[in-house]
Amino acid sequence: MSKSKRRRRMKKIAMKAGLAPGTLVHIGEARTDKVKMEVIDYSEASFEQKAIERVEECFPFKARPTITWVNIDGVHDIGIIEKIGKEFRINDLVLEDIVNTEQRPQAKDFGSFIFIVLKMAKYDPADDELLTEQVSLVVGSNFVISFQEGKEGDVFGSVRERIRAGKDRIRKMGADYLAHALMDASVDSYFTVLEQIGMKLEDVEDETLNHPTPKTLEQIHKLKRNLIFLRKAVWPVREVASFLERSESPLIEKTTKIYFRDIFDHSLQLIDLIETFRDVAAGMLDIYLSSLSNRMNEVIKVLTIISTIFIPLTFLAGLYGMNFKNMPELGWRFGYYGVLALMVAIVVFMLFFFKRKRWI
Amino acid sequence: MSKSKRRRRMKKIAMKAGLAPGTLVHIGEARTDKVKMEVIDYSEASFEQKAIERVEECFPFKARPTITWVNIDGVHDIGIIEKIGKEFRINDLVLEDIVNTEQRPQAKDFGSFIFIVLKMAKYDPADDELLTEQVSLVVGSNFVISFQEGKEGDVFGSVRERIRAGKDRIRKMGADYLAHALMDASVDSYFTVLEQIGMKLEDVEDETLNHPTPKTLEQIHKLKRNLIFLRKAVWPVREVASFLERSESPLIEKTTKIYFRDIFDHSLQLIDLIETFRDVAAGMLDIYLSSLSNRMNEVIKVLTIISTIFIPLTFLAGLYGMNFKNMPELGWRFGYYGVLALMVAIVVFMLFFFKRKRWI
Amino acid sequence: MSKSKRRRRMKKIAMKAGLAPGTLVHIGEARTDKVKMEVIDYSEASFEQKAIERVEECFPFKARPTITWVNIDGVHDIGIIEKIGKEFRINDLVLEDIVNTEQRPQAKDFGSFIFIVLKMAKYDPADDELLTEQVSLVVGSNFVISFQEGKEGDVFGSVRERIRAGKDRIRKMGADYLAHALMDASVDSYFTVLEQIGMKLEDVEDETLNHPTPKTLEQIHKLKRNLIFLRKAVWPVREVASFLERSESPLIEKTTKIYFRDIFDHSLQLIDLIETFRDVAAGMLDIYLSSLSNRMNEVIKVLTIISTIFIPLTFLAGLYGMNFKNMPELGWRFGYYGVLALMVAIVVFMLFFFKRKRWI
Amino acid sequence: MSKSKRRRRMKKIAMKAGLAPGTLVHIGEARTDKVKMEVIDYSEASFEQKAIERVEECFPFKARPTITWVNIDGVHDIGIIEKIGKEFRINDLVLEDIVNTEQRPQAKDFGSFIFIVLKMAKYDPADDELLTEQVSLVVGSNFVISFQEGKEGDVFGSVRERIRAGKDRIRKMGADYLAHALMDASVDSYFTVLEQIGMKLEDVEDETLNHPTPKTLEQIHKLKRNLIFLRKAVWPVREVASFLERSESPLIEKTTKIYFRDIFDHSLQLIDLIETFRDVAAGMLDIYLSSLSNRMNEVIKVLTIISTIFIPLTFLAGLYGMNFKNMPELGWRFGYYGVLALMVAIVVFMLFFFKRKRWI
Amino acid sequence: MSKSKRRRRMKKIAMKAGLAPGTLVHIGEARTDKVKMEVIDYSEASFEQKAIERVEECFPFKARPTITWVNIDGVHDIGIIEKIGKEFRINDLVLEDIVNTEQRPQAKDFGSFIFIVLKMAKYDPADDELLTEQVSLVVGSNFVISFQEGKEGDVFGSVRERIRAGKDRIRKMGADYLAHALMDASVDSYFTVLEQIGMKLEDVEDETLNHPTPKTLEQIHKLKRNLIFLRKAVWPVREVASFLERSESPLIEKTTKIYFRDIFDHSLQLIDLIETFRDVAAGMLDIYLSSLSNRMNEVIKVLTIISTIFIPLTFLAGLYGMNFKNMPELGWRFGYYGVLALMVAIVVFMLFFFKRKRWI
Repeated sequence: MSKSKRRRRMKKIAMKAGLAPGTLVHIGEARTDKVKMEVIDYSEASFEQKAIERVEECFPFKARPTITWVNIDGVHDIGIIEKIGKEFRINDLVLEDIVNTEQRPQAKDFGSFIFIVLKMAKYDPADDELLTEQVSLVVGSNFVISFQEGKEGDVFGSVRERIRAGKDRIRKMGADYLAHALMDASVDSYFTVLEQIGMKLEDVEDETLNHPTPKTLEQIHKLKRNLIFLRKAVWPVREVASFLERSESPLIEKTTKIYFRDIFDHSLQLIDLIETFRDVAAGMLDIYLSSLSNRMNEVIKVLTIISTIFIPLTFLAGLYGMNFKNMPELGWRFGYYGVLALMVAIVVFMLFFFKRKRWI
Repeated sequence: MSKSKRRRRMKKIAMKAGLAPGTLVHIGEARTDKVKMEVIDYSEASFEQKAIERVEECFPFKARPTITWVNIDGVHDIGIIEKIGKEFRINDLVLEDIVNTEQRPQAKDFGSFIFIVLKMAKYDPADDELLTEQVSLVVGSNFVISFQEGKEGDVFGSVRERIRAGKDRIRKMGADYLAHALMDASVDSYFTVLEQIGMKLEDVEDETLNHPTPKTLEQIHKLKRNLIFLRKAVWPVREVASFLERSESPLIEKTTKIYFRDIFDHSLQLIDLIETFRDVAAGMLDIYLSSLSNRMNEVIKVLTIISTIFIPLTFLAGLYGMNFKNMPELGWRFGYYGVLALMVAIVVFMLFFFKRKRWI
Repeated sequence: MSKSKRRRRMKKIAMKAGLAPGTLVHIGEARTDKVKMEVIDYSEASFEQKAIERVEECFPFKARPTITWVNIDGVHDIGIIEKIGKEFRINDLVLEDIVNTEQRPQAKDFGSFIFIVLKMAKYDPADDELLTEQVSLVVGSNFVISFQEGKEGDVFGSVRERIRAGKDRIRKMGADYLAHALMDASVDSYFTVLEQIGMKLEDVEDETLNHPTPKTLEQIHKLKRNLIFLRKAVWPVREVASFLERSESPLIEKTTKIYFRDIFDHSLQLIDLIETFRDVAAGMLDIYLSSLSNRMNEVIKVLTIISTIFIPLTFLAGLYGMNFKNMPELGWRFGYYGVLALMVAIVVFMLFFFKRKRWI
Repeated sequence: MSKSKRRRRMKKIAMKAGLAPGTLVHIGEARTDKVKMEVIDYSEASFEQKAIERVEECFPFKARPTITWVNIDGVHDIGIIEKIGKEFRINDLVLEDIVNTEQRPQAKDFGSFIFIVLKMAKYDPADDELLTEQVSLVVGSNFVISFQEGKEGDVFGSVRERIRAGKDRIRKMGADYLAHALMDASVDSYFTVLEQIGMKLEDVEDETLNHPTPKTLEQIHKLKRNLIFLRKAVWPVREVASFLERSESPLIEKTTKIYFRDIFDHSLQLIDLIETFRDVAAGMLDIYLSSLSNRMNEVIKVLTIISTIFIPLTFLAGLYGMNFKNMPELGWRFGYYGVLALMVAIVVFMLFFFKRKRWI
Repeated sequence: MSKSKRRRRMKKIAMKAGLAPGTLVHIGEARTDKVKMEVIDYSEASFEQKAIERVEECFPFKARPTITWVNIDGVHDIGIIEKIGKEFRINDLVLEDIVNTEQRPQAKDFGSFIFIVLKMAKYDPADDELLTEQVSLVVGSNFVISFQEGKEGDVFGSVRERIRAGKDRIRKMGADYLAHALMDASVDSYFTVLEQIGMKLEDVEDETLNHPTPKTLEQIHKLKRNLIFLRKAVWPVREVASFLERSESPLIEKTTKIYFRDIFDHSLQLIDLIETFRDVAAGMLDIYLSSLSNRMNEVIKVLTIISTIFIPLTFLAGLYGMNFKNMPELGWRFGYYGVLALMVAIVVFMLFFFKRKRWI
């Protein structure tokens, strides 16, 4: 996300200060495009998928015994959110959280529905940019409503495909299992991101060990930063999964809980990976810094060797360049050659000295 | 806060040592101006707001069934505090905490009222100054008394406006909801401050990466310092909100608790932000330090290149500046040009050597 | 405490190893002066204060219904401690802890009395010396016995004054409240110390930012050290206060518990302050280290500028100081001026180069 | 593991994102060789061991009252895994975990069986490579199925030997004890690895203290990296052992639990060792960095000594090399010798100065 | 312990991998000398102490109502351990732990006896060597068997003395109190060690502040290392003491528990001390590193001052050493003196410049 975008979003958060709780204000990237909406309705026997134009088109599905998944791709149109809230009896605080894309991942049980906030992650290795998109799920007894920020691309394609195909158990299970499938897809997106970051990390590590430049430092810094943000996003997922696994809500059936346990395990794995990557990145910084020192050492050594060899020679030359009348050596026949010999001797001695110091 | 002010305040804390608990001593910036007092009294149907001169004017409201909010803007006038304490049966230890502006955020249940201490924050990006002002709330069954330090500006304007407008649920709810609204306003002030600090952080980060100066280091240091103080102020808010959410006091109705849960979530978000900013600031320090090393490297490299090229040349010149009688080269016809050629050869060799070392 | 004193004390701890538990060995600074003893006996109506010569003089007070405070100023006279132990039925392990001035702050409930160990702190800003003195309290149903190390000055003057004055509630309350008052006085002594350390910290911070010397580093080191020791002393106070607040002992009345809660809050505030100071001190070390690098950079830059300007000039001068017969330039009319012009050109170019590198 | 292999594996994890849970996809090094399978069936009286070609050959053993250990060496053949899953009623999520070699160590109780994931470790000191191989155990009432990745060499030889020999209690105990024996063998493999890493650590420490090179830094980095990965592998073992020790499953008999407690203790010991090694490695980094500084100091000192001695001498020589007509000293009889004497004096003074500074 | 010894011991641990649990393999320094054994049997009235040759000699004491302490000084003779194990019904896993001297301190309740593992510490300040010796205690209803590694010297002399003297309560109490006395002696040995390390720390701190050498760094490193190992040894003692204090075993009487509480307090004190020492040592490293920088600064400053003063002078001398025919200044009467004056002016200016920069 560019700096100006981040600033604009921050502004919104601050502006919101002072409003009554339950006031719907969209916080996130400003958008004006039309919200995409889609309904997927299925049971073990039936399957229906349609894009809808007006939000009211999805309301009739609510009464059907089949499982209904309403996917709202964009939360900037407050009107739509309010209509859904009214129809599905979602209270204001929840609606407020849905339109605020700065939420922490979380799960709350409101009796008639469970509210889940998640983040999907995407990574652009070219310019080391980490993008996240918020997904809120409202999970009822026979429906799931998912709210995305409306950014390009989502990670739910595979879930749609599985429902359509109807091969695995997803068509036989309830709304809770659908919620699990969506949550699983969002968690899987982190594995994809971490894979890419892991590769980047290895490239940068190679660079650090072999030919570090100031650019390298910047890359280590960016990696560390992204890992900080990833950790912030993944830690709460653990709690969400654990909350759902241990939930006593009738909305979550016992047979589904073991799947949330599976997500819990995945989140632990993610945290492990992130912490390991952070440790490795910290180690790379140490190497970078010491390689700087090493190179300075080398430069200074060259300077010292050259200076230490030539400074005495130059002095000697200067000595016999003095214009005193009475300098007997100047008249000696082999004076010049003697001085040359002396100079060679000094050079040899110096080289020997550096050799012993292991400088050359 | 200026250094001398901080010192004076510290002095007070130390002076207080040795007094009996419950002795009212104002700890904070010394003030002599008149305390501003205001009463807002409302029910779903009625609304009354008036500034009062004498504290006794607010006492009659206590008996009314409506909700009464007494806002005392200044805690340096011990007389006022004592009168309120007597009228509303607030015990001495609480009064002592109210006039001591060095309290940690906290909430305590005293049966007939709940006592809450909070901090409001303000940030001055120009000179990187973080200001906090303490607010104490005494929440009874049908009244809230708020005590501010009396610094300029407060964050309760929006709450006043909401009560006056009477559009949202605030007029329909009790004193507990009013307390929540005030607490929410104080927590929101931290988001505003963090937004500003976040922008400052980005500016300083740019500076660190592009042209760091000793000034930059000072700014990183100030940012880190402010984040340390913010963390100190925000951490206990989490506990306060959680205490109120789980409170079994009859003063807090069940329907209000979910709003305190909301504040709890906000405090977690604040803590996340602060920790992330601290990590980023720590990373900036690493970059700053390594950029220092990088620049030293560069300077030393220039020195080394210049010295290493010219020192041998100067030696050669010195050699043929010697005054020995018998130096055949001096008489050679092309001796001078030969030496010049040798010098050029040395320069070329050196440049080649530096090239291979990637120094130039 | 001087190094040799510390060593001697350490010796004692080690010597004690191997003795049976309950063996009384005084551990602390060796002392031979007479132990000062004082009895203060009071009720709401009466007040009596007298210094005593023989410890037995205080025994009769035990049977009286009034509250008795026996203050023993010096624990090096094992005989006195043993007599008190026998009379007040204090078991050996407790007596052993009383004479060992290396205890951690702690509180233990022995049924018939509560045993509390505390530390009072004093700070000498001149030579940055942190002094602590141990106070042990034995709190019975109608008496408190306090044991101090007998160092000069104590922090209980204000408590004595409050009892004598009889204005606040202290004369109306029991021995538990007296214990609280003494504990409060000891905790307050830390605030005084932290105030002084806070001022020192600011002075050293100014020094670090403006003109750091190796002396500055030593001061930062001492501050950090003192904060380490303070933290060690204050952390357990939190547990002591919390233990007393939640105690179910009949010796502590319910009305007194809220005062221990107050001390608990103070200890949290102290811990906050100490941690904040430690973070600030750690930041100062970073600044100190980077200011070292900065200054080295500056020195090396001066060296490089001077060298880089003059080395080529000196080479040129050397070149035309050569004694070759055939050097046509030497005979040119404006040869000398030409060389001078060349030199000026080199200087100008170099200055321009440094300007562009932002070195000058 | 080579970099390309690691990358390929990562790819698989990411690819798997989007599949339904319970879909079997082998994640790990790509393999095509035949899976080795072996059955060991024993009771106190009997012992039978045979390699099998088709997985169905092991099914008859299930009905026997004896203990059966089926060892599957390779999890890349999905068909085999599915057949076993069907026969032994292992649910899909478990099978999915078995073929995914990127699992965290874990234990789960599924009622009719307990599922355990472990890692075996191997270390190659030559190129500092740490290798791990995943082992999954399915522990039923009278059988244990172990799934290895199929890498060369395993750590179960000793267990096989003990069963064959039948000397210790292994033949008298149930499947739970067999599971313990296998788990014990895997934990023991970490001790072997830590022993080797400990020796490497000592070698590198010697190198760091005596003649550190940039190579040394790389080795410290690799050691730290390996310790990071080891910690990641060992930490969860503690939980696994503790889970099994406290398990209330009828599959684990009370007499066996104390053996799991033993493994728990071992895992604590491993964690202690790893943390200690990490602290030591961190200390080595500090030493390495300061030895760099020390060496730079030494180099610069040599440069400074040589320069500081000869620069004034060279100046003096240059002074009397000037060609002014009117330079009386040049005509003095002992002018030359005087200058020589002055030079010697300067050298002596300088040496004395360096001596006092403790530079030489 | 020398490096080769450590390596040999490590080897043993690794070798043991693969053996059945309960297999007795001595892990520790290889020893062949005879195991020393001693029995002390006492009651309030009686006392008997004798060295025994064959382990069977101590068996008859078991049946007596008196308290029996069997001290086995050496665990390398597996035969003896096995005989004791059989006679006192100690299970194999415990025996295995006894002969493995690499155990963590721990306590386990086996119903008929309690098994305790401890470490005694010794410190050799001369070469900064920390030695530990493992002691295992088997505590029954009327006996304690202690197993030492058999290194020279033990810390139980004082306990023997106390039993013989019979003055304190040790003769009146049971086997649990004896166990406490032995544990207390082992914990006391850490105080002795920490006292010595504390003194060493002060010496090294003085050295660091006043004249640090590379040797100093090595000493800091060793101190830190020893503190790491001490911490590893002391942390579990806390748990052991707390386990025994809260134990519900009939083997530990209520009156003895307060003594284990005492040990618990001591272990907290030890941990405090160790952590404080570690913080101080970490601070010393910072000082060492910055003193390196300081010294480099000083060296470079000297170089810069000398160079910066003489390089321009040398240039001037070189200038007037040129051999141009047409150099009017050379003929001026006071040309030479003018140049000399210019040189003095340059020197004065430079000194003034350095003064202002606070370099001299």
